[in-house]
Amino acid sequence: MSLNFCFIGAGNLAFHLAKALNSKGFQIKQIYNRTESRAKELAEITGSVYTSTLNEIDKSTDIYIVALKDSAIDEVLSQIDFSDKLLIHCSGSQPISVLNKYAKNFGVIYPLQTFSRSREVDFSNIPIFIEANSPENLAILKNVAGTISEKVLVAESEQRQLLHISAVFACNFVNHFYFIAGELLKTKNISFDVLKPLILETALKVQELQPIEAQTGPAVRFDKNIIEKHLSKLADTEEYRQLYELISKSIFEHHKKTNG
Amino acid sequence: MSLNFCFIGAGNLAFHLAKALNSKGFQIKQIYNRTESRAKELAEITGSVYTSTLNEIDKSTDIYIVALKDSAIDEVLSQIDFSDKLLIHCSGSQPISVLNKYAKNFGVIYPLQTFSRSREVDFSNIPIFIEANSPENLAILKNVAGTISEKVLVAESEQRQLLHISAVFACNFVNHFYFIAGELLKTKNISFDVLKPLILETALKVQELQPIEAQTGPAVRFDKNIIEKHLSKLADTEEYRQLYELISKSIFEHHKKTNG
Repeated sequence: MSLNFCFIGAGNLAFHLAKALNSKGFQIKQIYNRTESRAKELAEITGSVYTSTLNEIDKSTDIYIVALKDSAIDEVLSQIDFSDKLLIHCSGSQPISVLNKYAKNFGVIYPLQTFSRSREVDFSNIPIFIEANSPENLAILKNVAGTISEKVLVAESEQRQLLHISAVFACNFVNHFYFIAGELLKTKNISFDVLKPLILETALKVQELQPIEAQTGPAVRFDKNIIEKHLSKLADTEEYRQLYELISKSIFEHHKKTNG
Repeated sequence: MSLNFCFIGAGNLAFHLAKALNSKGFQIKQIYNRTESRAKELAEITGSVYTSTLNEIDKSTDIYIVALKDSAIDEVLSQIDFSDKLLIHCSGSQPISVLNKYAKNFGVIYPLQTFSRSREVDFSNIPIFIEANSPENLAILKNVAGTISEKVLVAESEQRQLLHISAVFACNFVNHFYFIAGELLKTKNISFDVLKPLILETALKVQELQPIEAQTGPAVRFDKNIIEKHLSKLADTEEYRQLYELISKSIFEHHKKTNG
């Protein structure tokens, strides 16, 4: 395939996706970003031209990948004429239909992963969910996504939205609990470092076991003594106390259901 | 050192700790467990005798490691005469002082990790927190723990209790969110497997970055549109909706503090 790409938006997802496509031989012709320095940074890595001006976007590109905050999509896309080119968004929460008014050929590429600028990511094992407005466009996306990942799956908009919510629980909320755990340790001058092996093992366990089998701790043992002690210890921080109580109850209820 | 050990309790922690000590050349003389089959299983691995009868516990052992549910500690220990032997508990939540009435020499060994029967664990990088009733006993525990782990730290009871609460957030609650994420996917017939690379990367990120730097997703971007959409999608499951709202608010508040 000699398809070439333009990225509209140069945030963390675009940054890693453009690099991954480029490393597989796809030409990244152009990077647009409202803040020029970010467009420039990525363009230098992928050998592309860059711009922060919407009407400088090259009209002859094969595939336009929109990686913008959901709230910016409409404002940006309404200023570009995509003619019969293929327009792709990468949002978990936006249905494919939001692209309908901007292009004749459109689709979605949604890689289920958390992207930070400073972390290299290996796309080969990242599940990529695709959707398109026609079987022909779906075939193109399957090919493109298939060059960077071994796990390309078709998901319609409703499924994708649920994938996004699941990812918020399994990643963003999980990371927030790492944060809370670290904040608690700070009060006794203990370094976050001591939690790292526990955090890693917790994630490694569910690579093999189902989470319900992997669960340990006071809530799953119905150890009310410990739970009461912990709650009284957290009494000074109502936010943490409330979370502790609510989630312990949730663990308790779901394991009760499972066990009997 | 030619110290030998008796384990009182053969749960998941005892199972892995006894194996680790045994693999470093310590003799595990005896395993007691109320359910004999569990004592037998571990005893066969560590070349020990086993019993489910408290008055058969060997009085001549150097170190007794109590790995019981907190609520069972008093009932079991009050039936054993430890004389001047060293009595150790492994509980995050029990202060060292609970052992005072059962022995003259006592202490705590608390490995900060989640243990499941079916998962091998590498003790060498697990932080082990120790405490003892005398400098002499602390030195013994430092030696014992130091043979299986490179990270032996002294922590008093108050610190250990906080370590335990932190571990509940960073492990048990995290695992419950893996569970919830999987339950959500089930409603659309999507396999839990698709979350595995995301779960692993989320844990790997905080091995290098602080959680506050690693955070991504709608809450940290203050993306109210997506949050509202997700909440309405979760409206049928009040439990998940409430958790989503509470934690998004918590992420929002803590990042507001940090950024401004």
